[in-house]
Amino acid sequence: MHIGRQTWLFKNKPVIISTGTVVGPDEGEGPLASTFDFIHDDLDMQEKSWEKAERKLLEQATELAVLNAKLKDDDINYFVGGDLLNQIISNSFAARKLGIPYLGVFGACSTAMESLAVASLLVDTGNAKYAMAGTCSHNCTAEKQFRYPTEYGSQKPPTAQYTVTGAGAAVVAQQGEGPRVIAATIGKVIDFGITDPFNMGAAMAPAAVDTIQTHIQDLKRKASDYDLIVTGDLAKVGHAIAKDLFAQNNFSLEGTVFNDCGLMVFDTEKQAVQAGGSGCGCSAVVTYGHILQRMKKGELKRVLIAATGALLSPLSYQQGETIPSISHAVTLEMEDAT
Amino acid sequence: MHIGRQTWLFKNKPVIISTGTVVGPDEGEGPLASTFDFIHDDLDMQEKSWEKAERKLLEQATELAVLNAKLKDDDINYFVGGDLLNQIISNSFAARKLGIPYLGVFGACSTAMESLAVASLLVDTGNAKYAMAGTCSHNCTAEKQFRYPTEYGSQKPPTAQYTVTGAGAAVVAQQGEGPRVIAATIGKVIDFGITDPFNMGAAMAPAAVDTIQTHIQDLKRKASDYDLIVTGDLAKVGHAIAKDLFAQNNFSLEGTVFNDCGLMVFDTEKQAVQAGGSGCGCSAVVTYGHILQRMKKGELKRVLIAATGALLSPLSYQQGETIPSISHAVTLEMEDAT
Repeated sequence: MHIGRQTWLFKNKPVIISTGTVVGPDEGEGPLASTFDFIHDDLDMQEKSWEKAERKLLEQATELAVLNAKLKDDDINYFVGGDLLNQIISNSFAARKLGIPYLGVFGACSTAMESLAVASLLVDTGNAKYAMAGTCSHNCTAEKQFRYPTEYGSQKPPTAQYTVTGAGAAVVAQQGEGPRVIAATIGKVIDFGITDPFNMGAAMAPAAVDTIQTHIQDLKRKASDYDLIVTGDLAKVGHAIAKDLFAQNNFSLEGTVFNDCGLMVFDTEKQAVQAGGSGCGCSAVVTYGHILQRMKKGELKRVLIAATGALLSPLSYQQGETIPSISHAVTLEMEDAT
Repeated sequence: MHIGRQTWLFKNKPVIISTGTVVGPDEGEGPLASTFDFIHDDLDMQEKSWEKAERKLLEQATELAVLNAKLKDDDINYFVGGDLLNQIISNSFAARKLGIPYLGVFGACSTAMESLAVASLLVDTGNAKYAMAGTCSHNCTAEKQFRYPTEYGSQKPPTAQYTVTGAGAAVVAQQGEGPRVIAATIGKVIDFGITDPFNMGAAMAPAAVDTIQTHIQDLKRKASDYDLIVTGDLAKVGHAIAKDLFAQNNFSLEGTVFNDCGLMVFDTEKQAVQAGGSGCGCSAVVTYGHILQRMKKGELKRVLIAATGALLSPLSYQQGETIPSISHAVTLEMEDAT
C-alpha cells in the first residue's frame, strides 16, 4: 500500500527467513568478522579475475541464503539484484547459475535496499511466495572500473572510501520466523553539486537525509521509535554531514542510535580504509549479518536501513557532471516490537 | 497475483494513459516515422556529447508522457527505468531532473518491458496511483561503449545490429482510457553459449522463446489468442532462430502475427542497419508509438511484447564469457478484447 509521499507499507509484513553473507579478507579482519557466514582469505578466491571472484561471492551468498532457508533454487520465485559492475554482470551471471526468474535493479550502493524493497513488495502483494534479494561488490573490481588500475596503488585522499569485498543475500517469505520488512521508501535523485568522486560520502549524505526523514514522516513516526538508524556507506565525512543536515532541518535524532554501515564494517582507526567502507556489498553484509543477528537476539526491535548510492559513472565524471545520489530505506522489525 | 511459473497477473488491469516517443534521424526515415511524437534531425541534438543527447531523448520522452497524461511530474509516484550506458546514467540523470522517486532497473534491451512490468505492478497493487516507465538508447553511445570508437567507422558483419536512437516513456494509471497491462512474465537468464557480440540476436532468441512460451502457458492461452506477438530486438538472424526454436518445441504460431521491433523500426532492405535495430529504445518506441496506436485504432486487441536483452559487458566478453540473455514479456489488451 502506498502511504505518504513515497513509501510502500507492507501489510502482510514479509519475513526475512534466511540470509547468506560472504566477505573478503579485510572485512574478515574488521569488527563484524564473527557475523559473516564465510570469509575468504584472499581477494582472488581461486578465480582467474576479480570479476569472477566478485561473482563467486554472490553465488556463494545466494546459495547459502537458499540453503539456510531449507529451500531449493526452484522454490524461489524471483531473484532481485544488481551491482556496481558495468551492465551489473555479477548479478546477471549469478542469475544464470541460479536459474531463477531475475529482475535486475540498479541504484549503485543503494541497490542493497532497493533489491530488498522490491523482493518484499513481490512477497507482500502475493506476486511471489519466496523472493531473494542479493548484491555484491569487490574492492579490486570497483577500483579498476571507477578509479585507477588496481596494481597502480594510487594514493587517495582521506575523504575516499574503501569498497567492501562482500556479498549479501536474503530470502523473503510470506510466512516464517525472523525479522519482518514493514515498509520501504524509494528515494529521489538528489544532487548537491559535488564533483569529487573521492568524496562520495558528501555527495550521498543529502539523499540519505531526505529519504530517512521522508520514510519516518510517511510512517508517522519519529526517530526515537527506532533502536537503530543506519545509512549505507556515508563513512566518516558523509556521516558527519548527514548529522549536520538533520540538525539544520530540526530533525531530532534523540532517542535513537545513528550509525553507518561503512563505519561499522571496518575499524577505521586501525584499518587503512580512508573514511570507511562503501559498495553494494557494504550495507548488504552489515544488514544481513550483524544487524539481523542483533535483532534475532532481541537487542534491536526496530531498525531503519537507508542504503545510499552515488549514481555517477567514470564517463559522467569525465564529462564534468556532478554526482547525483539516491537512498532507498527499509524498516525491519522483530515480531514483538511495539 | 503470481500465476503459473513466473507471471504476474494484474487483477486491476492498469492502464497506459499516455506515452512519449522521441527518436533520431534514422528512425525518422524508417517505416514507423509517423508514429513518433518527435524526430530529431541530427544525432547531437544540440548537446555537447552523445551521452547528453541520449539523456535529452529520455527527458523529452518522459516530459511528453507526463504532459500527454495532463499531469505534472509531482503526480507521478514512481519513475522506473534503465538504459545501456554504464551505471544507467541516462535514466539516473533524467530522474534527477524529474524529481520523482526512482527505481533503477536493468535488463539490457529488455529493460523496456521490465520497467513497464514493474510500473504496472506498483499501480496494480495500490503501491502507486501513477507510475512512469521509461528507457532510451543512442546509436553513438552504444557504439563507443560496446564496440569501437564511433568515429572509427568499423565495418560490421551482417549479423550485427544497429542501436536505435530513441526514448520511450509510458504513464501507467489505476484508471483511464487506453490499452491495459494484463500480465507480465519475468524472464530467466538463458545462455546458449554464443560468444559473438556481433550476433546478439542469436544469443537472445532462446530467452525470447522461453519467456513467450512460459507467458502464454502461465496465462493458459495459446499463440492464436494474440493478434500480434513481438520480440524486442532479435532482428533478422534472431527472428529466424526464434521461429525455428518454436517449431522444435512444437509451439504453434498459427493464428497470430509474429514480428520483431528491430525489424519493424527500420526498413532493413533500404537502410544500412545490418540485421535490424536493437537497444533499450527499440521496443520502447515501437511499443509506445506504433503498437499502442494500432491498439487504440482497434486494429489490434491483444498484443504480447517480449523485450529481449543481452546481458554482456565489453569486459565479460573480453574475459571469454558467453552472452547470457533474458526476456521480459507483457500482455497488453484493449478494453473490449475477448
